[in-house]
Amino acid sequence: MSEFRVSFSQLELFITQAMASLGLPQEDAQTVGHLMAEADMQGSDGHGVIRLVPYAKRILAGGLNLKPNIQVVQERTAMALLDGDNGMGHLVMKRATELAIQKARSSGIAWVGSRQSNHAGPASLYARMALKHDMIGLYFAVGNANHLPPWGGLDMLLSTNPIAAAIPSGKEVPIVLDMATTVAAYGKVKAKAQRGEMMPEGWMIDRQGKPLLDPSKSDEGFLLPIGGYKGYGLSLVVGILAGTLNGAAMGSQVIDFNKDFVTTTNTGQAIAVIDPSAFGDLDEFKQNVDRLIQELRSAERMPSVERIWLPGEQSHHKRIDHEARGVVLAPGLVKQLNELAAERQIEPLQFISP
Amino acid sequence: MSEFRVSFSQLELFITQAMASLGLPQEDAQTVGHLMAEADMQGSDGHGVIRLVPYAKRILAGGLNLKPNIQVVQERTAMALLDGDNGMGHLVMKRATELAIQKARSSGIAWVGSRQSNHAGPASLYARMALKHDMIGLYFAVGNANHLPPWGGLDMLLSTNPIAAAIPSGKEVPIVLDMATTVAAYGKVKAKAQRGEMMPEGWMIDRQGKPLLDPSKSDEGFLLPIGGYKGYGLSLVVGILAGTLNGAAMGSQVIDFNKDFVTTTNTGQAIAVIDPSAFGDLDEFKQNVDRLIQELRSAERMPSVERIWLPGEQSHHKRIDHEARGVVLAPGLVKQLNELAAERQIEPLQFISP
Repeated sequence: MSEFRVSFSQLELFITQAMASLGLPQEDAQTVGHLMAEADMQGSDGHGVIRLVPYAKRILAGGLNLKPNIQVVQERTAMALLDGDNGMGHLVMKRATELAIQKARSSGIAWVGSRQSNHAGPASLYARMALKHDMIGLYFAVGNANHLPPWGGLDMLLSTNPIAAAIPSGKEVPIVLDMATTVAAYGKVKAKAQRGEMMPEGWMIDRQGKPLLDPSKSDEGFLLPIGGYKGYGLSLVVGILAGTLNGAAMGSQVIDFNKDFVTTTNTGQAIAVIDPSAFGDLDEFKQNVDRLIQELRSAERMPSVERIWLPGEQSHHKRIDHEARGVVLAPGLVKQLNELAAERQIEPLQFISP
Repeated sequence: MSEFRVSFSQLELFITQAMASLGLPQEDAQTVGHLMAEADMQGSDGHGVIRLVPYAKRILAGGLNLKPNIQVVQERTAMALLDGDNGMGHLVMKRATELAIQKARSSGIAWVGSRQSNHAGPASLYARMALKHDMIGLYFAVGNANHLPPWGGLDMLLSTNPIAAAIPSGKEVPIVLDMATTVAAYGKVKAKAQRGEMMPEGWMIDRQGKPLLDPSKSDEGFLLPIGGYKGYGLSLVVGILAGTLNGAAMGSQVIDFNKDFVTTTNTGQAIAVIDPSAFGDLDEFKQNVDRLIQELRSAERMPSVERIWLPGEQSHHKRIDHEARGVVLAPGLVKQLNELAAERQIEPLQFISP
């Protein structure tokens, strides 16, 4: 069977047209199309075009505001709180990040939170935006479905609540960390299910505490936090910073956006931007980051290890491969996207000819 | 054998007198004595009085500046960088935290970093300081010895680089997370060695990748990061934010302060303070934190679990016990402290009579 490969521009165009056909204003559809295609380009396959069909389902069910009034509702010198008015999360967090970058330029650091937002794609998408401005980006979000009980508990009251960090470098590839506070992100579970693969042990357990391996049975168990009780604590703190602090949903208020397509999610996110030039010479900082990267990469390796990777480096290599040869989409996903194209009466996604 | 129990005031007095006898100005000795005794009170037994003898050794070796000129070297509205002039870390980070609280009051968030600092005790000590002001504290530090190789590597280029977060609550105990980015903090390994106990599997591995259980052989192996490569990434990012960004030591620049008592450590730390009242009504925020705590605590439990704990709650219970009955010190530590008292010609530590 031949692979389904798409270029960035094909993917961006298709998503933009799908979003516009669903009623998003052209400019917003373009923004969402660009950011979702970017997610696939960087290898965040659980958070890119795979989400288009569920987004469409939410829009058609009336669960998302197509013409939101995204506005600053609280503000001080180094912070702001955005109300997303239940618009697409990508629109809310792009605006939040741009505001944080602007504020960090004078304050040295800035923090912008959101409420009444929605799923915005991979965490690193927004942390990365700071890099172009030679700044550090830190991103925190409340996940859009609870998959994690408190440590020792059975009620799923916490989500994967991810953390991303992007650190500018000089000649080296920037350091970009993008991690769920669970051993696996739920998007990865969905991608495994999409590909019909089993999960490795340690990703999920069932209600009896036994390993759960079949991703199609993910409803019957929950994700495991990293480092046991530490990951539980980290997920809670991230959730408070991105959710509770902003007046967004947290704990039992979080609705499962994979099951409920109507109720407003009131998603909360936060972006912090730090300007290294406030701390000293920017070039010196970038050289020091380079030196650190080189040191770590050239460390002595364990016998079976071929290479030491820095956070974000594998994603960088995926991007290079995707730029050259396109992004591979799973056949199941392609089928869904073709159905969506037919329903929305738009041009189907064009693939790169083999 | 009877237990050695000390009260907070006995501990504070003894450390203060020891520090003063070593040449710290009286006011600084008092500050360090207070913060170190606080560490033991909250149950951070790897970061309190257990560190007094190594601190003394460093001071006597000339590796620490007794009369540092701690000053702001970089500043913007919402940030500052302190140069600790190789003074005691407690003095540097207390000042950094006070400055961050002051700045957060007008900016909404503030971030203060340090360089030329030293070990400052448990991470939560400084994050907690924000609570009295109804603010959120986040603390990051570069650990004072490398125990962690990059993922897949053997060269120990990273430390336990801890994260702490303190979140104000209403009627409930505040949420206080204090975690190393490794499965176990090195201070816990030292405490195990002090008590002559074995470590559980999963804390450390040797250079062949096999479990290392004897804490007295900790030199022969390294700590494991939480969540495998995720903990490695987290340790690296924390180290860059607390170290590299501030012009402090990171990677191979980090000296092992358990072996080298002379070289300046150039320790880096960072404190971020967020004012929840900038985001909306403070009481509403605290009530929402309370509600979340209550929800998590009353979740259905796994069969063998008696209680669901919130981060910081066990430490809170330890503090109550310590206030009522004193802090228990290991016999090995008491012997060391008695020897120090004799050397420094100060009153030995007084214990609570059984």
